[in-house]
Parts: sequence; structure tokens; C-alpha cells
Amino acid sequence: MKENIVVYHYEQDVLNLTNPVMIVGLPGVGHVGKFVADHLVEVLESKKIVDIYSAHFPPQVMVEKDSTIKLVGNQIYVARAGHLDLLILVGDSQSSDTSGHYNLCELYINIAAKFGVRRIFTLGGYPTGMVNSEDYVIGAVNNPLMIDNLSQKGIEFKPSEPPGGIVGASGLILAFSQFCGIDAACLMGTTSGYIADPKSSKILLEKLSNILEIDVDSTALDEKIREMEKIVEKLKDSAVGEDGDYDEGSGPYEPSADDDLVYFG
Amino acid sequence: MKENIVVYHYEQDVLNLTNPVMIVGLPGVGHVGKFVADHLVEVLESKKIVDIYSAHFPPQVMVEKDSTIKLVGNQIYVARAGHLDLLILVGDSQSSDTSGHYNLCELYINIAAKFGVRRIFTLGGYPTGMVNSEDYVIGAVNNPLMIDNLSQKGIEFKPSEPPGGIVGASGLILAFSQFCGIDAACLMGTTSGYIADPKSSKILLEKLSNILEIDVDSTALDEKIREMEKIVEKLKDSAVGEDGDYDEGSGPYEPSADDDLVYFG
Amino acid sequence: MKENIVVYHYEQDVLNLTNPVMIVGLPGVGHVGKFVADHLVEVLESKKIVDIYSAHFPPQVMVEKDSTIKLVGNQIYVARAGHLDLLILVGDSQSSDTSGHYNLCELYINIAAKFGVRRIFTLGGYPTGMVNSEDYVIGAVNNPLMIDNLSQKGIEFKPSEPPGGIVGASGLILAFSQFCGIDAACLMGTTSGYIADPKSSKILLEKLSNILEIDVDSTALDEKIREMEKIVEKLKDSAVGEDGDYDEGSGPYEPSADDDLVYFG
Amino acid sequence: MKENIVVYHYEQDVLNLTNPVMIVGLPGVGHVGKFVADHLVEVLESKKIVDIYSAHFPPQVMVEKDSTIKLVGNQIYVARAGHLDLLILVGDSQSSDTSGHYNLCELYINIAAKFGVRRIFTLGGYPTGMVNSEDYVIGAVNNPLMIDNLSQKGIEFKPSEPPGGIVGASGLILAFSQFCGIDAACLMGTTSGYIADPKSSKILLEKLSNILEIDVDSTALDEKIREMEKIVEKLKDSAVGEDGDYDEGSGPYEPSADDDLVYFG
Repeated sequence: MKENIVVYHYEQDVLNLTNPVMIVGLPGVGHVGKFVADHLVEVLESKKIVDIYSAHFPPQVMVEKDSTIKLVGNQIYVARAGHLDLLILVGDSQSSDTSGHYNLCELYINIAAKFGVRRIFTLGGYPTGMVNSEDYVIGAVNNPLMIDNLSQKGIEFKPSEPPGGIVGASGLILAFSQFCGIDAACLMGTTSGYIADPKSSKILLEKLSNILEIDVDSTALDEKIREMEKIVEKLKDSAVGEDGDYDEGSGPYEPSADDDLVYFG
Repeated sequence: MKENIVVYHYEQDVLNLTNPVMIVGLPGVGHVGKFVADHLVEVLESKKIVDIYSAHFPPQVMVEKDSTIKLVGNQIYVARAGHLDLLILVGDSQSSDTSGHYNLCELYINIAAKFGVRRIFTLGGYPTGMVNSEDYVIGAVNNPLMIDNLSQKGIEFKPSEPPGGIVGASGLILAFSQFCGIDAACLMGTTSGYIADPKSSKILLEKLSNILEIDVDSTALDEKIREMEKIVEKLKDSAVGEDGDYDEGSGPYEPSADDDLVYFG
Repeated sequence: MKENIVVYHYEQDVLNLTNPVMIVGLPGVGHVGKFVADHLVEVLESKKIVDIYSAHFPPQVMVEKDSTIKLVGNQIYVARAGHLDLLILVGDSQSSDTSGHYNLCELYINIAAKFGVRRIFTLGGYPTGMVNSEDYVIGAVNNPLMIDNLSQKGIEFKPSEPPGGIVGASGLILAFSQFCGIDAACLMGTTSGYIADPKSSKILLEKLSNILEIDVDSTALDEKIREMEKIVEKLKDSAVGEDGDYDEGSGPYEPSADDDLVYFG
Repeated sequence: MKENIVVYHYEQDVLNLTNPVMIVGLPGVGHVGKFVADHLVEVLESKKIVDIYSAHFPPQVMVEKDSTIKLVGNQIYVARAGHLDLLILVGDSQSSDTSGHYNLCELYINIAAKFGVRRIFTLGGYPTGMVNSEDYVIGAVNNPLMIDNLSQKGIEFKPSEPPGGIVGASGLILAFSQFCGIDAACLMGTTSGYIADPKSSKILLEKLSNILEIDVDSTALDEKIREMEKIVEKLKDSAVGEDGDYDEGSGPYEPSADDDLVYFG
């Protein structure tokens, strides 16, 4: 098979987007970015415009609620939000090999350019290692001119943070955008790094809405936060070895309302 | 060498298959699927029509009973069963690297299409993590229209199960078949996941025979089940470190009647 | 993307280098070589002439002090030192896969040849496994005619040492240079192998200056040595699990004056 | 760089070999095969005819006694032995990645064919897991017609042994030879699998000489056996953690007369 397969469901001349902004929320630390992007796809009136399959993704299919399979991949949705057209990149996975990250991020940017994107926000989590740390959103940019505006909208900038840099698509997309002259920022919500963190996602969503000057209903995220709190309570109550040793994907179990919460960072 | 080498021993115009069905049983969880497919090759009057070698397989040869070597690979056999022509894909190995899975599954589907295959069943095991669990066969499909018929034949369908999706050829083949408009289902027999499980294979074979409306003698599988029970008894009796530390492939030993049973999942 | 992206900021006909010497100091054992090369870039009046990006590097961006990102890569600087033009190859990373090492080292040598380089010194550390061992610099060459001169300048040569050979760019560059008829030596400062070792770097810098017959101010390295001594003291004082369990890149922390020192070999 | 670089020092029309036999002894279990092939290169009047470098080998150079470097690679020597021309394939390494094994073994067979080779013997070790086991040589072939003759020369053949097949070049070369119609056998000397085993090599050499009907002085191997016995004695005497924790390649040490003996399987 070709290295990547890209299926376009709509072309730019049909969509006729004006000043589109790309939002990237792929799996990563605490699923903080993924929850925000998935939430945008759900609550906004979105439609899928691109499917991306790649030999760099894990060799795996997911099983849907109706027992049909879906090949692991990434998808791009388009949604109108206030005065903006959002292109939202979501998916089950990032590349499972090093060079694939480079290959896929170049592909994402080529698609972004094709649809006329001039600004990109990649969303991620920033692990603090502490369970009850102060919540904020830290940023990194590929153009220093973006910092003033983002600071005013509540994004924090700290010298050389994260100290280990940014690994994966959230970082590489900033670099490849820079090569193409597209402004891009990575926004990272602080999170413990141990569990899926929809609470951090909600804070990240608020900052992002503020930056984009759009209104997004966050009720569904509140629901996810409550579910996650229940799971954490259950984990606290249960002895290790009883309920606590769930090994993702290794056997049948009663699926919870939202499987994405079953995440251990 | 080329990425893959495919040797055709018979072509479609010679075989003149009508409405062929492909059965896939490669190594995997509990060898449940492999045992069924190997059994079909043995008990049906089958002949090998394709040899597949690939740089994605382990760099290894197996040694036959007559001390000649055989390069690790996959094979496709054809066999008449009732009113059907079965194409049975078996082999020593799946891809040893991620992208190889994509490459090989596309190859399998190309071969299937070449021989006019319109339906595919991939066979696998579904690990429950429990040694004495209830035995059943769970299914996933690439076309929801298949579910009704399969349910009537005793296949269970549960929303979003397996929760971690299906990894490897059994899953990818469903996805690639879908791209080509070939109906395909993955049938997974429940198994502990710890040892080779011919008992689960027998149940899977019964369901498959039921679906295909063919009769298959399962005596040889019964033999395998008894051997496996003996091995399990021996493992229970022996202290760890005496008989229990067999490391596959690391040294000479008296080969048992069926080496495939020496499997630790 | 192409396997590698090379951006030239100056061409040879503009720079008009005479008898240039290439110095290579990439990350490795104790960062001994990296510290020397980075130091040369800092203290000499250097300018960047080449940027190298590659899908063989980790998929990662670093965050600068002004919160802008920088794609992981290698850089070549040019600097006048005494009667010599130095081309100094530095960077955040070596290849993250085997074949990438071959690919990148061939690229380095092609660039060296393009700029007329006739001598190359690759700098590295030589792990002794002992914390308080005698400090010296050991050498290996791709042309035995180099040994006499280097011995006179204080480089030690011991038969078949290092016994395990030289792994990575420092070694491969010698081999690729040999194919092109460029004289090259690898100079390795002894170091414990457990921590970043600017003290070893200083000794290596002195030998290198001696060989090149240039004067280089080493004050900045002295500063680094003092900082490292403080870190080691702190590590000794702190109980394991209190201060000692710093996991690089896993969370926010107050960046020290020099992050490169936070290294565990 | 190209995937592989092959340097021919002599061509077939110059060497004018008649009925050449290829012997393959690359690093592997107990270095049993490597010791035999290296020994043949030493004691016979051999000359190097081919150098093979590859991006599939580790990115590493070895350091020679005169402190010059040598890129990790494989070499083919030619030597007259009795009535035969031997092509002896030796080297520092096998492929460090899966697909590289396929690539390199095809290359070896292409070179063999180029020089008119009609018979190949790959040499290896067969790990028994026991320190004081009976010594013998087991064989596997790519043509059953070879078995009678080899049995008469003292090679043992046991059904389906080794049970895990033959991994790496020793096995793949048999498969690729078969595709080209070249007869090939793998001869494996039994060995514990824990340490380098020149004693097993000597037995393997005797059998090989017997098969080829040539005389080979084995004095140098006797020397190696005595050295190995000394090392084993020393290991027995020394407490673990004193002398026993040598980690190959991790630091300076006094090189023994033969570094190849410092091997832990």
C-alpha cells in the first residue's frame, strides 16, 4: 500500500472556507488535547472532510458500537464557529514510528495549506507529576509575534518550558508550519500525567474559545469530568488487584459510558 | 530482495473457483484461529496454490521432519468443502514490523480479489484472562448487513468489543476488504490468553462450519485437546524450574507429537 | 518529507574558506564532545552556515527562552581560530535509528567535502566506569600517518581501544572520511560515563587547541564545571527519591543555569 | 548512502575458481561458526576478495591494534584447500534489523553465484542449555539428497531439529540458495549457549574438513580452547561483581590475547 492514503470527502472549492483555523487534538498526555478536539467535533455542527490512513499507524481496527470495524486513522472535520471556519484534526493514534511523525506532520500541513489555513493551534497536556496542582495553560509558538495576543487571552509563557521540548505531532506541526509561513501555537493544559484529565481539557477549551472569540457549550465535558471523578473514586476504594488492574484491550469487560476515560498515562 | 515474493502454483483460470470463500488463520492469541485453519488444510482435500515470502517475516527457516529447511512464510490452500471452494490462508508468522502488516494485508486482499473471493472470515482468539470462562465466539464485521445471519449461526456481537480493537492481520484484512467491497468478518473464540487453546478452536470450527453450512470432521482437534490437557497436567505437577522452564527454540528436546501446543501466550 | 533537509545559509564561494578543519561534537557519552563543540561555537566569532533536519532525528521540537520552538536538528557553524577556519558540527541529537546513522554521516562528509575540508576531528567521551579515574584523551584515526603528530600533542593511543569500537557518528564519520580520502581522528576524553562531564571536556579542549595550534578561552567551561560540582554535591546530600529522582523532560521545574548538565549517562 | 556497498578486490575471471565451495561463519550462538571460518582464513593461504558494508550493520567502527578504525562489515576471502577453492564469508556482525537479514542474504547468494559457487556450508552453534553436554554436530539441508553423504561424514540429522528453526544468515542463506538451485547445508556444533565455545568449533572444523576432504591444522584453535578454559576458571574463582561483571565495550580494560573469547551468549 502507499505510505499514506488520504480520502477527501469535500474539496476546498466546494467548502469555500474563509480564513480557516486548524485545531489539532490527537492522543497524548492525559488526552487533554484529544478531549477538546473531539468535543468541538461533537458540539459544533461539523462534517468530516478528510480521512487519513497510514502504514505508520498501529496495524489495528477499532470496533464500533454496532460491531463494525473502523481502521485506525486520523480525520479532519470542518465546523462553523462564530465568524470562523474550524478545521479540526482528530484521531485514534499518532505515528507508531519515528520517521512516520515527520511524514504525517508534513501531510497535515500540506492539507492545511490546501484548505487555506493561516493559523494552527495544536492542543496537548503538560504533565506536572502532581495530582493536585494549579491548573493553567502554557504555550509555545512558531512566531514570537503571537505571544502578546495569547498572553492577553490567558496563556502562560515560561522560558524554555516544557524543558524536554514537545514530542510528537503537537510539536512537529509547529515546525512544519513555520517552514510554510503559517502561524502556529501549541497550547498545553497542565495535568498530573497519570490519568485522562477532562478537567484540564475544559480549562484548555475555555482559553481556546477566548482566543478564537467563539462560544462553545462545555456541558458534555462536565459530564466527562463527573464520570472521571467516579472512576477515580472507584480506583481509590478498590484494593489493588481487585478492580484496579484493568489492562486496556486485554479482555471483555462492561464498557463504560465513555471508554476514552479508561486511560493510564 | 523485493519486499514480498509471491509464488503462484495454480492460477484462477485453471482452478476455475466458483464463489470462493477465504478463511484466514494466522498465529495469534492462543493459536485459536491458526489451529482451525491448519485443521481445515489437513482434513479437507486441499492443495497449496500460493506461497508468500516477505522481508517483513522473521529472518528464519523452520526445519522439517526430514531435516530440510523451509523459509518462514504464509501459504494459501484451496479445498472443496460441501458446495464451497475455500481459500485457506495459513502460515508460521505475521509481520514482524508495523508497516509490514499493512503491506501484507493489502497483498492478501489483492490475491483474494484475483481468485474472485467475495467473503472472508478471519479467525482469532479473544483473551478473557480467566482460565475457566464460558466459551463462545464473538464477531466483528466490515458490513453491518452480515450481523443478522452470523447471529443466527451462534456468533455473539457485543457493542465495541473487543474494547482494544483487533490487532494484526485479523483486523486489517477486514478494513482492506471493505475498501474493495468484499464482505468480511472476524470470528474470535474466547480463551484464557495464557496457553494454546485447541478447545476454543473446536468451538470456533463448529460455528464456522455452521456458517459455511459444511461438515468438517474434528477428530484431529479432539486429539490436540487431549494432548494439551496432558501438557497442562504435567505443568501443574512439575515444580517451576523443573519441567516448566521450557524456552521455545533454545535447545534440543524430544519433540512432542504436536509442537504447536508448546505455546505460551 | 525528504529523508533529510539541508538548508545552506552561506555557500563555499562566499565564505572562501582556506584549509578548513571540521570539528564534530554531537551528544554522546558524558556530553564530553558536545560541550567542547558548543563551547567553540560560543567563544569564537562563529556564524551558522548550515541547518540539517532529518526524519532520522527524534520527532521533537525544543522550546527556546522566548517560548518559540526549534525543530531538533544539527547545525554547522564556521569560525576563524588563529590561522584556521573551523567548521563546527553541533546539535541536539544523533540519529534515532541504525540506518539513519549511515545516512547522516554520509551527508556530513558530503557537506565537509563541499566546503573543502581536509581534516576532521570527532570529539567524544570514553567511559571508564570509575568516578575518580585519571583523565586523559585517547585517539583513533582513519590514517596511521596521523598518529605521530597526535601523540606528540598529548593524545594517547592504545592497541584496539576502545575494545567495543566507537558507536555512532564519531566512529562512522572516520570511516566515511576514509572512503573520501579525508584524514580524520576521533578524540575521546575519559569520563566516568555516569554524568555530564565538563571537566573532561576542558581537558579535551586543551588537547584539541594544542593540536590545532589555536588559543581558546575556557572560562565558560570552568563555570560549567563548578555548576556540575554543585549538582553532584546536591545529589550526594539528597536522599534517593527526594531530589534524586528527576526524570528529564517529564514535567515543569525551575530550569537551572545550564540544562545540558542535567544528564545521566 | 546506498543500502549496501560491495567492494570487489578480485573478479571471477581473474581468480578463475573451479568448483568453489562457500563457507559462512558469522557471529552467532557461542561464536562456534565464526571461530571456524576465522580460523580457516588464518591458517589457509587466503586473500580478501570482497568487502561488504551495509546500513543494516550496527553504526560502528572497530579499532585495530594500530589504532586505525575499520567500519563494521563482512568480508569474503578465497583460499585453496586441497583440491578445492574455498570462499569464506566472515565478519563482525549480522544485520541489526529484520529486513536487512533478507537483503544481505540475497546479496551473499548473488556474490556466490557470481563466483560460480555450487555448494555452501553455513556454520553455527546449537545451544543445549547444558554446560557439560555431549558434543556433536547437527545438520539441516536445503536438498534432501545431501543427507546421506553428510551422515556418513559424521553429521547428525534429527527430525525437526532445532525445534525453533534456524534464525539469521545461517538459515536464510539455505533458503535463498534453494531458490537459486545451489545445494547448502547448515552445520551446527552443540554448545552450552552461555559462553564462546572454541571447543565446539574444533569439533565442527573436524567434521567440515572431513566433508570437504581437506586437511586443516587446528593448533590455533587448541590455543583458543586453553585460553577459554583459563577465562572460565577465572570466572569460577572470582566472586560475582568482582571480575564477573565485565560489560563488553563499556570501558577500558587490558585486552586479552583474543577478545573474541569475551563473549556471553
